[in-house]
Amino acid sequence: MNPNNLERNYKKNTKHSSLLYKKSLNLFPGGISHNIRFFSPYPFFVKKATGKYLIDVDNNRYTDYWMGHWALILGHSPKNVSLALSKQVKNGTLYGTVNTISIELAETIQKLMPKAEKLRFATTGSEATMYAVRLARAATRKKIVVKIIGGWHGFNSSLLESVNYPFEINEGLGLDVDNKYIRSIPFNDLDTSLQLLNKLKEDLACIIVEPILGGAGCITPDNDYLQGLQEFSKKNNIIFILDEIVTGFRLSIHGAYKMFKLDPDLFTLGKIAGGGLPIGIVCGKTEILSISNPNKNNKKCICSIGGGTFSSNPVTMTAGLKTLEFLQNNKNIVYSKINELGAYTRQELQRIFDENNTDVKITGIGSLFNVHFLNKDVREINNATDVALADKEKLRKYHFALISNYKIFFLPFKMGAISYQHSKVDIDKLLNSTRLIIESKIL
Amino acid sequence: MNPNNLERNYKKNTKHSSLLYKKSLNLFPGGISHNIRFFSPYPFFVKKATGKYLIDVDNNRYTDYWMGHWALILGHSPKNVSLALSKQVKNGTLYGTVNTISIELAETIQKLMPKAEKLRFATTGSEATMYAVRLARAATRKKIVVKIIGGWHGFNSSLLESVNYPFEINEGLGLDVDNKYIRSIPFNDLDTSLQLLNKLKEDLACIIVEPILGGAGCITPDNDYLQGLQEFSKKNNIIFILDEIVTGFRLSIHGAYKMFKLDPDLFTLGKIAGGGLPIGIVCGKTEILSISNPNKNNKKCICSIGGGTFSSNPVTMTAGLKTLEFLQNNKNIVYSKINELGAYTRQELQRIFDENNTDVKITGIGSLFNVHFLNKDVREINNATDVALADKEKLRKYHFALISNYKIFFLPFKMGAISYQHSKVDIDKLLNSTRLIIESKIL
Repeated sequence: MNPNNLERNYKKNTKHSSLLYKKSLNLFPGGISHNIRFFSPYPFFVKKATGKYLIDVDNNRYTDYWMGHWALILGHSPKNVSLALSKQVKNGTLYGTVNTISIELAETIQKLMPKAEKLRFATTGSEATMYAVRLARAATRKKIVVKIIGGWHGFNSSLLESVNYPFEINEGLGLDVDNKYIRSIPFNDLDTSLQLLNKLKEDLACIIVEPILGGAGCITPDNDYLQGLQEFSKKNNIIFILDEIVTGFRLSIHGAYKMFKLDPDLFTLGKIAGGGLPIGIVCGKTEILSISNPNKNNKKCICSIGGGTFSSNPVTMTAGLKTLEFLQNNKNIVYSKINELGAYTRQELQRIFDENNTDVKITGIGSLFNVHFLNKDVREINNATDVALADKEKLRKYHFALISNYKIFFLPFKMGAISYQHSKVDIDKLLNSTRLIIESKIL
Repeated sequence: MNPNNLERNYKKNTKHSSLLYKKSLNLFPGGISHNIRFFSPYPFFVKKATGKYLIDVDNNRYTDYWMGHWALILGHSPKNVSLALSKQVKNGTLYGTVNTISIELAETIQKLMPKAEKLRFATTGSEATMYAVRLARAATRKKIVVKIIGGWHGFNSSLLESVNYPFEINEGLGLDVDNKYIRSIPFNDLDTSLQLLNKLKEDLACIIVEPILGGAGCITPDNDYLQGLQEFSKKNNIIFILDEIVTGFRLSIHGAYKMFKLDPDLFTLGKIAGGGLPIGIVCGKTEILSISNPNKNNKKCICSIGGGTFSSNPVTMTAGLKTLEFLQNNKNIVYSKINELGAYTRQELQRIFDENNTDVKITGIGSLFNVHFLNKDVREINNATDVALADKEKLRKYHFALISNYKIFFLPFKMGAISYQHSKVDIDKLLNSTRLIIESKIL
């Protein structure tokens, strides 16, 4: 193996995936069913996942830091979850009506996150954020939605704007009905943000923000940024929405809102809350959620949100409940383990790059982290523009080298998440592989 | 039991559900997580579902004709599906990347429905129809979407209009960004529909229609209605979208489009295609789907659609694949059974009501059916307005009497679906119960 010929190494190891990808091109546009799951020359095809590993059709076993879009805090198919699921699938996957497990899951969430005064289960995060925006518009009778440049809230039309660089260009065709009501502010720049917000406040329904800029590069908020947005919202009767789809149950069992001492009017959950099965949840103040009470039965005063055929399905509810129960019963062990591994990873990665004079900034918090290769224009990583203008080709090569040469999987460009299944041995392997990649001058 | 005191009978049998509903009111607005799953005085809470039965927390066993929003053509947890699922949940629920089962499911669909030249897996039907509309706008560079009055395409903002009577009033607060670009035409009235379409054609992106008006009352299309819409679309370069989320794999294994000799540009699947787990699929012509090819990587010429964290997850893919395989291997047995039971149900229900001078019209096709109580204003059931103006209080009482006195479950007002698990004995029980309800003058 020549460590520098990444593509040849990858292709040699993934012959079956190569054939499947050819097949895939006849089925899916671009051979793929999710925009970001493609990477060049073709992604490997997974046949099984267990613990911290993804196993592909060529029997390569990858240590997985993508972890199901960061949803799998306990790793793939943890025993307590999969045992409960294998019972549940025999007792119904879709009751199509109200059920007991959804009450248990909702109660568990409400206890852990008391700001979920009321909840609405949907099936995906995209649905949850779409419904949160709709509720905000209903509550305020206003239309404009402010999001963060680079902020990611799913593929719904209400929030698909300023996601990819260049941020000022629309996110593609077919979105122009909605996108004139979406405005974007720069993360961690409170002055600029407040200036724009002040201009928009007359028709401003809500501000929606991820506490950690996740998909855009794993960036933590400056001290007063989120507080500043919240303060503006409260003062101007604007709905403050915290999108905790990534951070909920990830940074702490009580949500990032508690960690950052925030009081969102609405917040959204997903990913971890569904224990590896499809979920999205709108949570928040009774006053706002109640506008969606379907029993009012008067179109003029309700806000109609899903629901959906698969909402509250007993399989998702079981996976979510078993996951949260495990987290609750083991919260000190789980969070101290993954957060300590996270801190170790960030510190050691930074040290290794520094020692090798590779100009890198590691970002992250808790069990989340990402690598950014700096260049002469980008000296700090404070927002999505910094991430976009950093050396992304180096980042792609770094992540691809980890895949092709060391069977360590990050979805190229995306932050990594440490699960309860990872151990220091895995992190040390990541660190050593990083050292070897730097030394072989691949980057 | 006094058969006429429905509510007392129901309450006597559902004491635990009553307590759970009280708890539920502290968790969910209106005590519910899906608008239509509430019925008065409170819905029963399901703890288990198997075969044709729903079992509630008070151990009532209901023969289920709601069947998971009509998704469960093989009944609840059919053995071949649940066995495969109980294995799969141990081998990963969310790979977060491409996988082999999604290729198998896509190939199976493509063989059965060759008009799925390309596919995109999403997680819900609401997502699939939202993406279909977005693709249509992208392909045409136009904005207006025409749907059918009473047509149901999920809770996405792009299509939430003219769902509930009075249809001319918006479907609630928070939707006004989108709903000015949604126009509605009356089902089965081609002349009026074409008049409106002609007025709109300059900025018209697409027409979206369910082949059978499902949620709005189970109404079949007149001979030339769908053809007429399609012809108009082709002539004017408008995208013709067939929403087969209910009908796909329900009316025939090849879709309603084949049955009605249609050639949609795009069509959507969901429900049955996911075998009881969350799914939505956009299918159609390569030319249109290709606009979503993420590998073009140029925001100016692509249409960005999901995807989503849970798209192509191996649990859904397995359930869908096993369900379609069973249907394929047993297609003559399954479809002839459920369609014959459907025809028998419609014919005998109509006969019973006729014989008892109850002014009723039974609608439906294949394994789907619904009851409509006529009155002096509504003499026929051709569209959603007829359904809305028929005697809905009688329909509510009829469905609730079936629940409270006979443990037969239709979601009140909604059409029933026969699954492969139902037998003539079940239908005869439904018919006898109907006879007893009429005779006891409950209605």
